[in-house]
Formats: sequence, C-alpha cells, structure tokens
Amino acid sequence: MNTETTARLLISCDDKPGIVATVSNFLYHHGANITALDQHSSDPEDGTFLMRLEFQTPHLNTSQSLLEQAFAENVAKPYNMDWKISYAARHKRTAILVSKQDHALLELLWRCSRGQLPIDITQVISNHTDVEAAVKSFGATFHHVPVNAGNKVQAENKILELLSGDTDLVVLARYMQILSANFISHFPNRIINIHHSFLPAFVGADPYRRAAERGVKIIGATAHYVTEDLDEGPIIEQDVKRVSHRHDVEELKEFGRDIERNVLARAVRWHAEDRILLHQNRTVVFAEW
Amino acid sequence: MNTETTARLLISCDDKPGIVATVSNFLYHHGANITALDQHSSDPEDGTFLMRLEFQTPHLNTSQSLLEQAFAENVAKPYNMDWKISYAARHKRTAILVSKQDHALLELLWRCSRGQLPIDITQVISNHTDVEAAVKSFGATFHHVPVNAGNKVQAENKILELLSGDTDLVVLARYMQILSANFISHFPNRIINIHHSFLPAFVGADPYRRAAERGVKIIGATAHYVTEDLDEGPIIEQDVKRVSHRHDVEELKEFGRDIERNVLARAVRWHAEDRILLHQNRTVVFAEW
Amino acid sequence: MNTETTARLLISCDDKPGIVATVSNFLYHHGANITALDQHSSDPEDGTFLMRLEFQTPHLNTSQSLLEQAFAENVAKPYNMDWKISYAARHKRTAILVSKQDHALLELLWRCSRGQLPIDITQVISNHTDVEAAVKSFGATFHHVPVNAGNKVQAENKILELLSGDTDLVVLARYMQILSANFISHFPNRIINIHHSFLPAFVGADPYRRAAERGVKIIGATAHYVTEDLDEGPIIEQDVKRVSHRHDVEELKEFGRDIERNVLARAVRWHAEDRILLHQNRTVVFAEW
Amino acid sequence: MNTETTARLLISCDDKPGIVATVSNFLYHHGANITALDQHSSDPEDGTFLMRLEFQTPHLNTSQSLLEQAFAENVAKPYNMDWKISYAARHKRTAILVSKQDHALLELLWRCSRGQLPIDITQVISNHTDVEAAVKSFGATFHHVPVNAGNKVQAENKILELLSGDTDLVVLARYMQILSANFISHFPNRIINIHHSFLPAFVGADPYRRAAERGVKIIGATAHYVTEDLDEGPIIEQDVKRVSHRHDVEELKEFGRDIERNVLARAVRWHAEDRILLHQNRTVVFAEW
Repeated sequence: MNTETTARLLISCDDKPGIVATVSNFLYHHGANITALDQHSSDPEDGTFLMRLEFQTPHLNTSQSLLEQAFAENVAKPYNMDWKISYAARHKRTAILVSKQDHALLELLWRCSRGQLPIDITQVISNHTDVEAAVKSFGATFHHVPVNAGNKVQAENKILELLSGDTDLVVLARYMQILSANFISHFPNRIINIHHSFLPAFVGADPYRRAAERGVKIIGATAHYVTEDLDEGPIIEQDVKRVSHRHDVEELKEFGRDIERNVLARAVRWHAEDRILLHQNRTVVFAEW
Repeated sequence: MNTETTARLLISCDDKPGIVATVSNFLYHHGANITALDQHSSDPEDGTFLMRLEFQTPHLNTSQSLLEQAFAENVAKPYNMDWKISYAARHKRTAILVSKQDHALLELLWRCSRGQLPIDITQVISNHTDVEAAVKSFGATFHHVPVNAGNKVQAENKILELLSGDTDLVVLARYMQILSANFISHFPNRIINIHHSFLPAFVGADPYRRAAERGVKIIGATAHYVTEDLDEGPIIEQDVKRVSHRHDVEELKEFGRDIERNVLARAVRWHAEDRILLHQNRTVVFAEW
Repeated sequence: MNTETTARLLISCDDKPGIVATVSNFLYHHGANITALDQHSSDPEDGTFLMRLEFQTPHLNTSQSLLEQAFAENVAKPYNMDWKISYAARHKRTAILVSKQDHALLELLWRCSRGQLPIDITQVISNHTDVEAAVKSFGATFHHVPVNAGNKVQAENKILELLSGDTDLVVLARYMQILSANFISHFPNRIINIHHSFLPAFVGADPYRRAAERGVKIIGATAHYVTEDLDEGPIIEQDVKRVSHRHDVEELKEFGRDIERNVLARAVRWHAEDRILLHQNRTVVFAEW
Repeated sequence: MNTETTARLLISCDDKPGIVATVSNFLYHHGANITALDQHSSDPEDGTFLMRLEFQTPHLNTSQSLLEQAFAENVAKPYNMDWKISYAARHKRTAILVSKQDHALLELLWRCSRGQLPIDITQVISNHTDVEAAVKSFGATFHHVPVNAGNKVQAENKILELLSGDTDLVVLARYMQILSANFISHFPNRIINIHHSFLPAFVGADPYRRAAERGVKIIGATAHYVTEDLDEGPIIEQDVKRVSHRHDVEELKEFGRDIERNVLARAVRWHAEDRILLHQNRTVVFAEW
C-alpha cells in the first residue's frame, strides 16, 4: 500500500478543537484523498495533538509546492504546527557509517536491494576496509575514512564533506566512533544508531558481557536518534530475546547481532516512511510490525 | 485515557474522497473534540473506508440523541455508512456462559472487579455448579441451567429468557455446549468464544492432545465471534507460547489455560471499548496491547 | 510428570571427569531410576559442574535418610559438592508478604488452589488489611503486621516470629517495605521478590513512570532472590511486553501487573520444584516454559 | 562452547534403570569428559529414554573408531539403542535446493560464511538461475537443473547424481518442486524444508493469502523433515509474528520471509549440531535459542 502516489503529512501542535476538520477540509478541497490517518492526543484536555496521515496525490488540483505553501499559510500557521509533507516516491538519501562488523549493514543493503526498504543508499563510509567488498557487491559506493587518536577532527570533517549536499539520513550501523556535538548538529534527529543493549540497561561499553555477568534472562537492542548525550537520544525501536545459563557471552553477541539488524532495519524503515514524530525526547511511532 | 466523557464512533463504508472532512466537520460544529482517530482504507482506490475515533463530550452543544439523529441524517445517509456511536460511561451488560473450567471466567471477574475491564457482568450461567461459589464471592449473579441430551432446546430457551431484555454481550468462557443457529441469531456478532487452539489449526475437539501428537513447537488460543459455522467466526485475538518435548499434554493444557484467559480478556475488552469492526468475515481491531 | 514419587538432586562443584558416572552409579545401585537429567559445565576445561536430575523412588532399596547419608559420604564429599536432594511429595512451606496490591498474591493463591503450584501457603502477612478478605476466601491464614516509621524493627521481629519454625520460602508479592540485612540473613536465597521493572533498567522507585518518560518500547518485570543489595540479587526470571506512545503510565502499570504476576508465579514454581542453582550471583534455571 | 574437540552422543531406546550409569561409566573409562547432558524419559514407567550428551575428546584413551565399536558392542547392543556419535570438527556436507526466492538461501550462506552455522555448503542447486550470482559471490558452487512438466524424473535423477557420494543433508530453502518418494528415500530424515505457514494451519499452497483471508492475527513458518506425506513430516522449529488488518498480503509475505529465514537457519543449525532425535513422528530438540 506504500504506492508511489502516496504522500504523508506529519503534524504536532497544541491540541485544540477543530484541527482534524481543518486539515481534512484543506486536503479534500485540494483533491487529496486520505487513505490512512492515525491521530492521538497526549491528554483529553490541553494535550499535544499528534497526527500522521497518508493521502493520494493523483487527483491533486494544484502542484505539490503550491499545496505545501497553502498548507503553511492557511493551516499550519493558525495552529502553530510543527509539520512536514513528504512523498513516497522521493526516497531519503541515506549514508551508512560502519566499522568492522557487517551484520547490520548487510541487512540494510539486502532489504534495500529487494525493495523492502524505501531509501537510496548513497554511500557507505567506514573507518576500516573489512566491509568494502560486500558493499561493492551491492553496487553501492564505499569510502574509507580511517580514524585514529590524532585525526578525529579531520576524519569527521572528511565525512561531513562526503555527506554534504544531499544527505537526508545518516545510519550508524555499528559505527564504533563517538561523534562530536558539532557533527551531530548537522543532522538533528536525522542520525539513527543501533545500540547493542536494551537501553537504559547496560549503557556504555561491552553490554553483552555485562548482561551475562548480571545474569539477565532477556537481552535486547535499541535503535535511537543520536543526540549529544551518548545513549540518551529518543528511542525508536527495541527488541529482545530470551537467553539462559547455557549461552555464553559469544552466543549472547551472536543473538544480539540478529536482534540488532532487525531492530535497526525497522527503525530506518519507519524513518524512511515518515512514521516518527518527536515529543518530549520520546518518539511517537505511527507503525506496527 | 478511557475517561467517562469519552464517546466512540465506528464507521465502515465504501471509500470516497471527503469522508474524514465531513465527519470531523460535523463533530467540530457540534462541540465534540476528537482525541484519537484511527482510519484505514482497504485499498488506495475503491476500497472500504474503516474508521474509529474517540471524541470528548463535555462541550457538546446538543444532546447525545440529537447528535446521533443529526449524524444519521447528514453524514451516514449520504455515504451509506455502517456506523455506531457509543459512550464509555455506558458499560456493556455482559452475560458469561461457562461449564466446569473456571480460569477464563475468573480472569474476567477479577479484571472487572479491579476496573480493568469496562463491562457490567449481569450474570454467569453454567450447565454445572462447579463455579457457583467463585462467582458469588465476586458478588455476581449465578444461574444453573443443566443441559443433557434430552433438554437441549429447553435449556437454550431458558438461557435466552435469562438473557432477554438487557444483554449487550455474551461471552463463552469455556462453555462446552454447542449453541444453535437460533440462539446465535439473537446476538449477531455479540457472542465471543475462546477456542483452545491456534485456529485454524486443530479445529474441533481436544486440540492440545492433537497438538502434542503433531509435535508443534508453539501452541495457542483464539478468541472469535460465534457464527453458525463452528470455529469459523471472525477471529478477534490470538496468542501463542513455545512448547517442547519436555511438556506433556497436561502441561500444554495448563499453558493453554494461561493463554486462553488473557486472549479472552483482551477480546472482551476490545469489544467493550468498541474497537472492533467487521469487514468480510474478518475483524478490524483498532487496538494495540 | 511431576509425580509424588519424584525426587530431585541438585549439584554444583568443580568439574572433573567422572562425576556423572559416579552419581548415576550411586543412584542405580540404590534402586533410583533417573527420569530426567540436565547437566551443564560452565567451561570445557576447569569449569563448574552444574546438574539437576530427577529420579523415581518406588524401587529405592534403602530409606531416604540413609540414601542421603550415603550420598554425602561417598559421592558429595570426594567431589566437594554443593548438593541437595528433595522430594516432590514434600511441598515447600511458603509465607507470602504483601502490601496493598493483590494481583501477584491472587495469582499465587489461585494457581496453588488449582494444584498448578506445588507449595503449601502457610500464611499471608501484610502491613495493610486490603487483601485480608481475598486471602481468607482461599482458606489461607492472614496476619496483619502494621509497619510505620517508628516500629520497623518490632514489625520485622513480629514477622520473623510468625515465620519461625517451619518456613522454607518467603515470597514478596509486592511487599513495599525494605527488609533489613538481619531479616534477609534468616532466609538466604529463600526470599523471592518481584520487581516491577526489567532489571537492571529502572532500579529503584516508580519504574513505570520512568519507563514512560524515557520512552522505552518494551517494559518488563523481574523476579529475583533478595540479598542485602536492593534490586541486585540473582535474577530468576524476567518477561516483557511491547508498549507505545498510546499507553500512558496507568496502562503501563496495568500491563506491568500482568507481567509481574506471571513472572513471579514461574519463579516460585521453579524454586518449588528445585530447578534453581546459584553460580556467581547468577541463577542457573533448569526449566523451560 | 561448540569447540572442535566436542563429540556428541544421541541415544533413544526403551527406558530401563541404569542406562545413564552404563553410558557415563563407558565414557569415563575411555577418557571422555561429559560437558553437557540432557536426558528425558517420555514417561516415569515404561517410557522411551531420550538423551543427548556432549563429551570432550582430547583425553580419549582410544581412537574414535574403536570407541564407537566398543560402544556398539558393550552399551548399545544390550539396551537395543538407536544411537549416533558425531564430532563437531566434522561439518555436515550440505546441499541447498532453491527456486527463485533468495531470502532463506542467503541467510544460510551468510551465517555459514560468518562461522555461525557449522555446515559445509557443498553446492546450491536451482531450477532457475536467479540466485546464481549471489551464490557465486559467496564462493559456493551453483548448479542449474531446470524442471518442467516433461522432465521431472530426469531432473530428479540429475540432482541425485549431483548429490551422490558425499551429501549428509539436503536443505530446501524455498524449493518449489515436489520431490518424489524415491528421491526422499535416499535421504531419510536428512531433508529439511521450510514451509511458509504455521503448520498445521494452511497446509498447501498460498498460505499467506489464505491467512489474510481467514483474518488470523498471527502468522508463522515451519521447518520440518521431509517425508512422503507433503507438509506432514516431523516439525523441527516454528516461529510466528503478530499481524493486523493494516498489513496486506504482500506485507504478510514480507514478514513471512523474515520468519522463514530465521526458522530455517535454526533448524539447520540444530541438525548440524546433532540436537534432534525422532520419536513417534515428532522431533525431540535438545536446544534452546
């Protein structure tokens, strides 16, 4: 149902009576047919209005840019909305950063190549060369940007240069370098990281070893937007798996990789389909899987 | 968020441009504030329009009955809608039929007594007396209607008499008698049954034994609306659990009871909250758990 | 398969060649037939040997006490084993401590009354009287031991007195008082607590509110043995449930209660069936559910 | 823990007192150290004895072949055992048959290439050429054996010829041709198929469409040994996923592919690690994941 004629409208604003009516009238009068709508108010009184809707564009009686201009003026402004209209036909240009481990990267490349992940992977950047051959076998562009204790700033600048111009989304598919606040500020809420633990448990390094030592019965992974506070950004998706004393740390890591690649793939897909709103450092995800 | 001032509107009809606009305008102009809306079209073109919305009634500028009358005339009729408005404050009057096993019954009584299940349990009817004391300990009304080979019709008539007048919903919480087409016709899509298998696997009798014999690795249970076709009514909810060769049939039954009581409780809750639409012998469930 | 003629043997010791042979020879020569055996070494070389086995007692050629005496002398001593033999027919005498919330308590009482939980509930002790009627409706003994800022020591002493003599296991089924180190020392690894979060996430108070604020997508509960380090004791069992922005804190708590009661019931059952060994502040659970 | 010095012993026979003692004595006296043992009797009296154990070979005081010969004579024969000893260092030579869909195949190739799946993939055979490039990119051998209405017997014979000599295991990774009884008889309980439904629901063709039409709330996939009775062979592993009215048939298929590839990978791994026994057309799987 994610056809090429689908557009999506995301809105958040202070809740007031009449918003659904105003928005749906506007779309109706411009020839847009609503095919899915998911709306939620954070409270019955004085809450935040949160909405995602999909509409079909074939019978629009105006251009996309005029539609957006009119929406901004006549609908968004009076209600002081945060809003965005996007089009399924226009895939997000996505760069993937990765270090040595290939599992999350390959899952994204593979799903994308099958048409299951509506993004354009413009480039893969790594501080190592381990994944180069795999990336190229998918026909994707690979850049090697080595990082060491002495060249961190230069390396980030090199990456920023590679990303400049046309990058909608940056995915950290097990990229083991910490990004600077400066780097992050170029892509606010547009960098997705996969963390190899069920956050907020085991924040920081070596979570599977610590999970084994604590004797937890369930491990997990977390995809989140990257903010300046390491491991504290808004959580997009999580998943878990039962484990037992029979599994040693290596097996936890292996199970973890399976969780990581699927959790990251779902998070990227939801971002790509404009299913995510931010509200008070939390995500509102209009999705189901 | 399921406050006493919440009303719910369920709609299904042929999809056409402008339905969301028409409905939301109508509500806005009558002082109803939409606090949740979930809409889905079964196809981008010529599909079925399916919608559930919640609105708040405190600022209605008309009575509930005039609102419904106006909606029927001005909105539902032009679009040829199947529709229903209901009010959270008006709990569905629910009768529970049960045989000897008490697990599903007790779960409903217990959740209801805690305020977690917005129904009024008007009576519990059983063909045995095993559960009588438990029912009465919750302060609920119990009726014993024995059934044997010779009195099936009379027993059903007796039950129909007990239900007559004020029963919105009938729940079969492991009631081991087959209901006649006549009985069912009194409560179309208002009888919920819990079947002790993951339908459509193991339709019919003794599903856990057959599951053990087939060596399945996952067992389940299914809540569905009762229709004339035994075990073929629209599925409302299902859940499952992993099992292994270590579990014998008695353990499968025990696990199954845990699944059954939770699946049935969710199904009844979703019906009670008007979260279920029917579409082509399938349910559309506007819920998440 | 948990018949009244079943005995269980739990062993942990340094791993060495020949342990399984020695143990199984011993049992064979005393007329004990092994019907289940689960053995695991923590490492291929120089690890810890961990084993649970079930044997049938009808053909024992000695008394239980002589069997145990001989095992201690001839098997356990040479290998320096931690070990225990217990008998399914001898249910553990269990006291339940609870405050106001009844969900975990009722689940235990209900499962026990159905024969699904092989413990004898000798008494329920609460610092409130909210659950008194429910406890008595199951025919169980209830004691009210109020706790306030000024009588904590006396209250604990009163509880210790009530437990003295014949208590094998203490279950904290949402008991909201912190127990002293002195109290805990009376029941080493024999106090089970249910914590209302997916530990180690949200250690401490009000975990569901904090889970909602952090925006996690999955919540959980944890059953663990109580040690002096609050929330740090060995984890016995955990379970989780997906949630979303549609669920407010009250709903998280409601979902949480469902997880809590099931997680606690499993943990108590596994303890009751002698399925749990301790190894380096972690549990080894010889179970599957 | 799946080290190269690990051997595995699988046994099933009529249960009698003394089997564990006899087996463990035998191993001890030949210098084999047991590092994991999982034993289960199907009944406390007169059941079937089922056991898997792992032992370490570095301190064996005999050759592997003499060990097996002695075991056959002195242990297996007196108890009339079905048994097998295998060695982790000797990977099963595995051929994969596939048609056009690549998801299950790629998962196996990828896991194998990472060292997560202890098999040697000797060849991939397909009735199409769609997957040829992908197979070769992993350095694996590819054979194209076209099948049409007129050449079914010749095609099977061609495949049998390719497999002859050194094939331990045949995996059908979405191979859409039905194999003849003759073909199957060459590999009894050594052909694993992935079926794209949660068997026994939706036996036969087009299960996802039928699942959508029936309105089930959970879909699944099943890995099983292939027998002459199509879709009726012993189930090795199953898994499931929740779905809703929001997902159309194409999405069910996409979700299904994710389930299929993981279920098949686990089933192949468990076979490769000799974790599966057959008992009354059911599998006993000594594994946990």
